[in-house]
Amino acid sequence: MKNIFFLFVLCCGISQVTAQHSHKSQHALTYPDIEGYVTLKTDLHIHTVFSDGDVWPTIRVQEALRENLDAISLTEHLEYQPHKNDIPHPNRNRSYDIALAEAKEHDLIIVHGSEITRSAPMGHSNAVFIKDANPLLQDKGEKAFSEAKKQNAFVFWNHPAWHAQNPQGNPILSDFQKERIKKGELHGIEVINSIDYNEESLALALEQNLTIMGTSDIHGLIDWDYTEKGNDRPITLVFAKEKTLESMQEALFEGRTVAVYNALLVGKEEYLNPLIHSSIVVTSAKYFKNTQVLEVHLKNVSSSPLLFKNAMEYGFYSSSPVFEIPALGTYTLRIKTLDEKENIDLKLKAIGAFTAPKQSPVVSWKISVEK
Amino acid sequence: MKNIFFLFVLCCGISQVTAQHSHKSQHALTYPDIEGYVTLKTDLHIHTVFSDGDVWPTIRVQEALRENLDAISLTEHLEYQPHKNDIPHPNRNRSYDIALAEAKEHDLIIVHGSEITRSAPMGHSNAVFIKDANPLLQDKGEKAFSEAKKQNAFVFWNHPAWHAQNPQGNPILSDFQKERIKKGELHGIEVINSIDYNEESLALALEQNLTIMGTSDIHGLIDWDYTEKGNDRPITLVFAKEKTLESMQEALFEGRTVAVYNALLVGKEEYLNPLIHSSIVVTSAKYFKNTQVLEVHLKNVSSSPLLFKNAMEYGFYSSSPVFEIPALGTYTLRIKTLDEKENIDLKLKAIGAFTAPKQSPVVSWKISVEK
Amino acid sequence: MKNIFFLFVLCCGISQVTAQHSHKSQHALTYPDIEGYVTLKTDLHIHTVFSDGDVWPTIRVQEALRENLDAISLTEHLEYQPHKNDIPHPNRNRSYDIALAEAKEHDLIIVHGSEITRSAPMGHSNAVFIKDANPLLQDKGEKAFSEAKKQNAFVFWNHPAWHAQNPQGNPILSDFQKERIKKGELHGIEVINSIDYNEESLALALEQNLTIMGTSDIHGLIDWDYTEKGNDRPITLVFAKEKTLESMQEALFEGRTVAVYNALLVGKEEYLNPLIHSSIVVTSAKYFKNTQVLEVHLKNVSSSPLLFKNAMEYGFYSSSPVFEIPALGTYTLRIKTLDEKENIDLKLKAIGAFTAPKQSPVVSWKISVEK
Amino acid sequence: MKNIFFLFVLCCGISQVTAQHSHKSQHALTYPDIEGYVTLKTDLHIHTVFSDGDVWPTIRVQEALRENLDAISLTEHLEYQPHKNDIPHPNRNRSYDIALAEAKEHDLIIVHGSEITRSAPMGHSNAVFIKDANPLLQDKGEKAFSEAKKQNAFVFWNHPAWHAQNPQGNPILSDFQKERIKKGELHGIEVINSIDYNEESLALALEQNLTIMGTSDIHGLIDWDYTEKGNDRPITLVFAKEKTLESMQEALFEGRTVAVYNALLVGKEEYLNPLIHSSIVVTSAKYFKNTQVLEVHLKNVSSSPLLFKNAMEYGFYSSSPVFEIPALGTYTLRIKTLDEKENIDLKLKAIGAFTAPKQSPVVSWKISVEK
Repeated sequence: MKNIFFLFVLCCGISQVTAQHSHKSQHALTYPDIEGYVTLKTDLHIHTVFSDGDVWPTIRVQEALRENLDAISLTEHLEYQPHKNDIPHPNRNRSYDIALAEAKEHDLIIVHGSEITRSAPMGHSNAVFIKDANPLLQDKGEKAFSEAKKQNAFVFWNHPAWHAQNPQGNPILSDFQKERIKKGELHGIEVINSIDYNEESLALALEQNLTIMGTSDIHGLIDWDYTEKGNDRPITLVFAKEKTLESMQEALFEGRTVAVYNALLVGKEEYLNPLIHSSIVVTSAKYFKNTQVLEVHLKNVSSSPLLFKNAMEYGFYSSSPVFEIPALGTYTLRIKTLDEKENIDLKLKAIGAFTAPKQSPVVSWKISVEK
Repeated sequence: MKNIFFLFVLCCGISQVTAQHSHKSQHALTYPDIEGYVTLKTDLHIHTVFSDGDVWPTIRVQEALRENLDAISLTEHLEYQPHKNDIPHPNRNRSYDIALAEAKEHDLIIVHGSEITRSAPMGHSNAVFIKDANPLLQDKGEKAFSEAKKQNAFVFWNHPAWHAQNPQGNPILSDFQKERIKKGELHGIEVINSIDYNEESLALALEQNLTIMGTSDIHGLIDWDYTEKGNDRPITLVFAKEKTLESMQEALFEGRTVAVYNALLVGKEEYLNPLIHSSIVVTSAKYFKNTQVLEVHLKNVSSSPLLFKNAMEYGFYSSSPVFEIPALGTYTLRIKTLDEKENIDLKLKAIGAFTAPKQSPVVSWKISVEK
Repeated sequence: MKNIFFLFVLCCGISQVTAQHSHKSQHALTYPDIEGYVTLKTDLHIHTVFSDGDVWPTIRVQEALRENLDAISLTEHLEYQPHKNDIPHPNRNRSYDIALAEAKEHDLIIVHGSEITRSAPMGHSNAVFIKDANPLLQDKGEKAFSEAKKQNAFVFWNHPAWHAQNPQGNPILSDFQKERIKKGELHGIEVINSIDYNEESLALALEQNLTIMGTSDIHGLIDWDYTEKGNDRPITLVFAKEKTLESMQEALFEGRTVAVYNALLVGKEEYLNPLIHSSIVVTSAKYFKNTQVLEVHLKNVSSSPLLFKNAMEYGFYSSSPVFEIPALGTYTLRIKTLDEKENIDLKLKAIGAFTAPKQSPVVSWKISVEK
Repeated sequence: MKNIFFLFVLCCGISQVTAQHSHKSQHALTYPDIEGYVTLKTDLHIHTVFSDGDVWPTIRVQEALRENLDAISLTEHLEYQPHKNDIPHPNRNRSYDIALAEAKEHDLIIVHGSEITRSAPMGHSNAVFIKDANPLLQDKGEKAFSEAKKQNAFVFWNHPAWHAQNPQGNPILSDFQKERIKKGELHGIEVINSIDYNEESLALALEQNLTIMGTSDIHGLIDWDYTEKGNDRPITLVFAKEKTLESMQEALFEGRTVAVYNALLVGKEEYLNPLIHSSIVVTSAKYFKNTQVLEVHLKNVSSSPLLFKNAMEYGFYSSSPVFEIPALGTYTLRIKTLDEKENIDLKLKAIGAFTAPKQSPVVSWKISVEK
């Protein structure tokens, strides 16, 4: 039978060559760094066959590579194991181990994580940057959280407004969560989970100083649930000092994130504002000959379409005051400055971005006019 | 030589068959009627080789049929005739006559028109629904306007903010225009001309009670200037009692219009509001089982992508409070009504639409919840 | 813990609704029936995590539903089990059982199958329509085949020309296969396996009277390996008396198949010829007025682009003598019949289809000319 | 009135900037040079409003620039002037003069031409490289041709098989043409006119040693008649010593052409063969490790999809023996060479290309295998 194994090493030589080309696909995501930090594209809520997902962990690594992510975490339910008759592993770290091996040759960080799963009011939470998932499997929720803390895990509350647990569709901050926050055992909260954005969770994040998170919570295929419907998967942008596991962990504990789902960006003003500022690059600014109409070329270097509203005293010459700069696209603004300036402050309200419920940031760019 | 003519009747039999199929193309525009009126899609500012355009009038008719317009007007410059050495026609009605013949078998209204062309401060104006273009060719601008009035023409001011005439990019209402308005010789104003939207012209329209117009001012090809760049041509929606030349003329004199360019809609609230109301159809509204989350399916039956912002007291369950319903597309809103209702008022601000500079209408739909 | 299970029943209510819509996707395959038989679209060579594939069996069912297949078989390697430390199931029927449950509400036939895997010269073979996979796991290949026969399985030889087993890239019919054929234990042969078409395997199929098969042999995702590269998965069209498991089995034993990969169709003339005949529908045939040029409109009702070459004595008026009718598309032929006919035989050589190595069938359609 | 003209110089400043970008569009055509010659992409049969076309000559120049043509000729009917009441120019060179001015800043050759138009049996012919169109307007066809010869024009017979003149759809070589050929007054023949390919005209070209031509004969818009239907305009590739008017004229008199319409290429073997040879570039050739299967990467550097059929003694490992290499696309052939070679001759029959009715050339490429 030795021959069989030799044979399978050779197997599929042709198609592997082809597969490598498709790692960076047309759906590769890109977001600019902000001053002082590198911007990491992360999805920290993902399932595989090792809990209730539909694919082997290798597919999750390949999906992440295709989408140009910097980090993922496979967060299997510890308590909910619908495939346990087929996959009766006593070791809850298998999903992580397989993903780590698959990612070995690639520049993708695999964060060790697990989902702690209870019915309301405890609900679901993810512990990431753990060392060993097995001790987190506890009868009492409190013990699972204290074990996570012992491992220095970053823990965030999943879909707090999930209608299956909260029929009104709003989060309820129970004594359980209050206690966890007080004890330093709960650090973040999802404001975007799969296709759902929850403003009240954002309000809670700000009130309780929790890190703002966005995740795909994928069980099936990213392509079927997101890409082929014209969407990108939801992610958390993490602003880290460098691209390492440790730096990313530090940034999450410090709350340096923006949650993103297509055109929707949600974050604290101190991070969302610079992200939008970096996302739009002014490539030229010049007056039309013999006029006081200033033509400004703008380039969106991010994968989010960005919606803006004029927030200057000057009107536009041609554009609607509400306009979109497509993902990785360009836009030409013509501004009526009334007399010729050498410098102007372009001020735009980013109406698809939120720093608090219904509150969008005004971002400004200093523009030097070309002669 | 008689044979040659016979021969050309047969000529191109094959390709004509094919051409007919392409009249209603994928770029066909559609907008719903509003209560009491049919909505006519019109472009009343167009050029051909009979002034400074690049195509024979037949192409303009074919372009309009492909885009499903209801009415067009070929508004040749009376005074600016760069091709006059080649086309020395003394009769300024030729462009109209040719278009009329081409449209004969089709349900497309050809409005007889002309452009009266002067440098600032008089500028350019279109007289449409004229009977004879020749008498409008006058040395004095005042005489051209009074002749247009004699013919009961509807006259509108073209691109009042054009930077070539007004270097600041803003319209200047001169004594000439004031006099024309006073005498009932000027009835409308372009707020959208080709790719340019001008808020100050909208302010003038409201202040002077002028009809709000949007036109393509096309000289080259609609496909090259608009379609292949992902845009639709700018048009004026006219709310007429019926689809006839006379009804359309009456509606224009009465100011019943909305100017449209892609996602941008500009009009008086009394017409813009019902247009948006008709454009969005609620196709179903039902609570998720065992929750107070109401799922509402919306359908945009217009060719404009429509941008909205939540204007209700209730939050959304999944969507961003700012969202777009694609042209002829659908969107699912999930509304947290907190307890179960039998009826609710869906209230949305149409942030891509304007009833005055920077002012967007709030539109509401009465929704009956299905059991 | 009871609550957790209740909770997961509700879970994902929203996304399931959406998922149902995508079952019949834009990649749904369609092929017409032929006289006397229904045409079943089947893929009988597929892997999951239960051998060396990357997904749970449910994904395979969903892929098949999206592509509108009629039948699939999950043919796990019995002997090659790279995931056996994680999935140590002693029961080799699990993959089948899970797929069967997933397909329950759908009109998709799940064929019970397994792959018998050896190094050359035995190579790999699939046994389908088995009752129990476990007894097929045998040390000696001969015993595996005799057990398959006992279960009345239809057995076919996989990728006989695989370069990892045959470095020249050609199949070698060994004594092992000869013996199996003689004993009635080997009934079919893959002429298309994944992206590979092998003419010599077709020659063997004809020489040994084996059923002609085409399969995807998918391990990863159909979308990544085929769809996003512009290809459809390879399939076997089975011409069955009705759409049942039994009928399909009977048809395979009788050799009523065509293997298909995009524009490539391979089958015995008696089935390939009627398939192409049914795939092209003549929708009208009329003379141009006053000419002897007959215009014939053709419609391809299959998902394969079909390549043809003129095989008539008459020339074409406009088309190249070599032309393609796109998948589900139309084509207009203009035929110079020299005088006016009431009927003609349209004769075309289907140059992308093969009934033997390098041999393409000529198909003919009787056309009645309209007056 | 002086102001008006100044004003129109400024006019449209914005849109002209944009228009320049679209000159080289996605439909730009490209074909490789062949040994000893540059390959010029030409369309020498075009109409404008100066005969029975629908656009001003400037549009024809812009269409040609968008499609990356090297040369065009506006060949107005001298005798058929449906717009002559509006455009009563006595000078038949106007169309040429306007196009020449429009093309001034671009690298596009404008060839002076005219169409000589008669009913059958004389039919239609184009005289190109003329000096003055006016003297070609003659009552007697014979005089028009002798005048063209006096000007050293290259003259070709248009759509000889046109059903409106020849109801059987086949060309009839009359005494008129025979006399013209004998006198050296007729040098070429269209085998492709608009969407029509005529094999009998190709037979005539070979029999009478006439230059093989392909033209669009466009009257409306290239986009509507060709591009938006997925086609490129038909052209004649001219193999000239250099890109000049004189060189092109010499090449046409010498018969160095290939007529092209999408995948269809028609020409004499001595030019068609090298064109296909140059169109396919072998980018690598290497054996799969431990096999005798040679993998050859091919790149099509032309805008025509090229259809091939295996013409070697060796079989393919994966591909169908009939395959297409997409326009500007790539293809991977795997060839079973049975033992390892250092060099092989790749031989393919180009089945979409014709050197005579129904006759396709076999082209070969010398391949050095990489170690």
